[in-house]
Amino acid sequence: MTYLDNSATTKPEKEVADKIYEMLTEKFGNPSSFHKIGLDANDEITNAREAIARALFCQSEEIYFTSGGTEANNLAIFGAAEVGKRRGNRIVTTAIEHESVLKCCDELEKRGFEVIRLTPDSKGRISKEQIFDAVNDKTILVSMMYVNNEVGSILPVQTIKKAIIRANAPALVHIDCVQAFSKTEIKPERLGADLISVSAHKIHGPKGVGALYVKKGVRITPMMFGGEQEKRLRPGTQAAPLIAGFGKAVSMIPDYKQQAERINELNAYAKSELAKLKGVVINSADDASPYIINLYVPSFMTSQTVVQHLSSKYGVYVSNGSACAKGKKSHVLSAMKINDKIIDKSIRVSFSRKTTKEDIDALINALSETISDYPA
Amino acid sequence: MTYLDNSATTKPEKEVADKIYEMLTEKFGNPSSFHKIGLDANDEITNAREAIARALFCQSEEIYFTSGGTEANNLAIFGAAEVGKRRGNRIVTTAIEHESVLKCCDELEKRGFEVIRLTPDSKGRISKEQIFDAVNDKTILVSMMYVNNEVGSILPVQTIKKAIIRANAPALVHIDCVQAFSKTEIKPERLGADLISVSAHKIHGPKGVGALYVKKGVRITPMMFGGEQEKRLRPGTQAAPLIAGFGKAVSMIPDYKQQAERINELNAYAKSELAKLKGVVINSADDASPYIINLYVPSFMTSQTVVQHLSSKYGVYVSNGSACAKGKKSHVLSAMKINDKIIDKSIRVSFSRKTTKEDIDALINALSETISDYPA
Repeated sequence: MTYLDNSATTKPEKEVADKIYEMLTEKFGNPSSFHKIGLDANDEITNAREAIARALFCQSEEIYFTSGGTEANNLAIFGAAEVGKRRGNRIVTTAIEHESVLKCCDELEKRGFEVIRLTPDSKGRISKEQIFDAVNDKTILVSMMYVNNEVGSILPVQTIKKAIIRANAPALVHIDCVQAFSKTEIKPERLGADLISVSAHKIHGPKGVGALYVKKGVRITPMMFGGEQEKRLRPGTQAAPLIAGFGKAVSMIPDYKQQAERINELNAYAKSELAKLKGVVINSADDASPYIINLYVPSFMTSQTVVQHLSSKYGVYVSNGSACAKGKKSHVLSAMKINDKIIDKSIRVSFSRKTTKEDIDALINALSETISDYPA
Repeated sequence: MTYLDNSATTKPEKEVADKIYEMLTEKFGNPSSFHKIGLDANDEITNAREAIARALFCQSEEIYFTSGGTEANNLAIFGAAEVGKRRGNRIVTTAIEHESVLKCCDELEKRGFEVIRLTPDSKGRISKEQIFDAVNDKTILVSMMYVNNEVGSILPVQTIKKAIIRANAPALVHIDCVQAFSKTEIKPERLGADLISVSAHKIHGPKGVGALYVKKGVRITPMMFGGEQEKRLRPGTQAAPLIAGFGKAVSMIPDYKQQAERINELNAYAKSELAKLKGVVINSADDASPYIINLYVPSFMTSQTVVQHLSSKYGVYVSNGSACAKGKKSHVLSAMKINDKIIDKSIRVSFSRKTTKEDIDALINALSETISDYPA
């Protein structure tokens, strides 16, 4: 198997699966219970929270577990909008956010908020100037991703706080770090972030758990109501096995510098090999995240067909756009003003720290044969 | 270990843990992806959805996966209130619901809805007459639990639909079946239910997943926004390992009749043994669910201390009220007008199909010794 769809999801580390199994079979107590098996489960949650706090250079009280990145984004955006609505009406975001941010903003627009969606250039980049221009003194929230999930663009999120200060805006800063986490250092203070979303299954952890960083002193309203868990910002029996697995995954994040060097090399190698293939065009920017290459092959049938062909014939797994969109036309490539015919023949190749040169070779071989079999 | 806190959470079946491990290590694809490993994960979700639909005597399109019972309850209540608000303003519920229902109703009251909370008798029972009296033609939602999680009362939920018809109300019927599921047959049609909440970790499945049954043709609004998953009623990458584990747990539910016979016997045995202990009073009704016995021991220190004492000295795990409340005074016993001193010395013993006579004997022995060690 050549798994190159790591932006959709990653394979959990064996240690993560083992930890989850241990939780399911041994430490199965309700983490809110006062007896030993409950306390044991709670200890695991405490450890995981500390591990995630260390990885995010924050305090463990600033970490709130959710059911995943989508919930973390929803909680951040609706929670900030509800608290901010008395001080302003404007929400600034981009046209290339993940659907869980886009659709929240659409909903808030219906409810009367003014939503400014910054549009990218033809390579999926957002400029600092766009951010400065968009933030005014009525802005209550800026929600932006750090790394785009479809083309890999790195957004100038550090600029948001400066723009807010310059505009004297009462805005909170929400950064969707789902694609960036585990690949680059995320320091809330340096990013100027009040709220940060992360997800376990993108970092070799399990599906079904994520976290929202909420800066100490920042108040947002909950979306759900119930028990006392997660300081009532997120009620419901904590998914202790998943949370412990998330903690294990986070503890296995390797040194960022070494990781970056290796992936940069892999990315350069992949691009040089792709350049040899007839007609291949890279949609991603040169300065995009080295983990994501979005590309277009003129001779392809539709990208969905290619994804299935590469899967069934070669065991090479790539994607057509975001998995969450389930085959709908990519809003990211559309926002980059790429024409529909090209969008329809574009695929995303996404790496993780587990990706090897052999994976790239298998991809190139599969693409090369596919292009020969189906000449334009 | 004598685990008698099954209303807080249950131990996952080994087969459930194995299925989850298999999903984590082999079928780790994103279920929304179009390549083989994605489709494999999606097949598992389809199978689980079908298993749950069979267990709930409904169609698989009527099952929506959530992160647990709390989210299912939130989704049902807010979703129904939002859709119903143009047709009426009244929500009928009880004072003994789970916190995830109570707190949603509190929030809706703040937002302008009229919330009627039926109060139980001294044994935690709600009468049919109360339901008929409360439902009027402005009622848009009746949300009631089938089995109470703290004292085990069985609520006359079948009456709700009759009351709605008699009042000619535009109300939806939501039944929180978290404690009833896997223990008794749940047929939406017979219950007159439009919405039913269930949770995996109460039925020997994993924490972090639940489901909402939404009757075909019934529309509720989503709480979260994002991708296309779960027909957009519940976006976010599906937690395929948990969902598959939930499916496995559901497929292991034994014959209801045999289960009931065994548990009724165990319950009778436990009650007869408890009756021999000095001063013990049963708070639960005689006709309560046989899986839950809430009891009061005059000579106890506070129930929280007893829970810890039974845990550390005997390895006997029981609870003081609902785990979700994390030691707050029980709103259920309060609603039953039990005085604070008794509430403070009450514990909940809860069974599952795995509970044995030996578990009961260990409990009785531990309680007996504790009562001798700390005479009133």
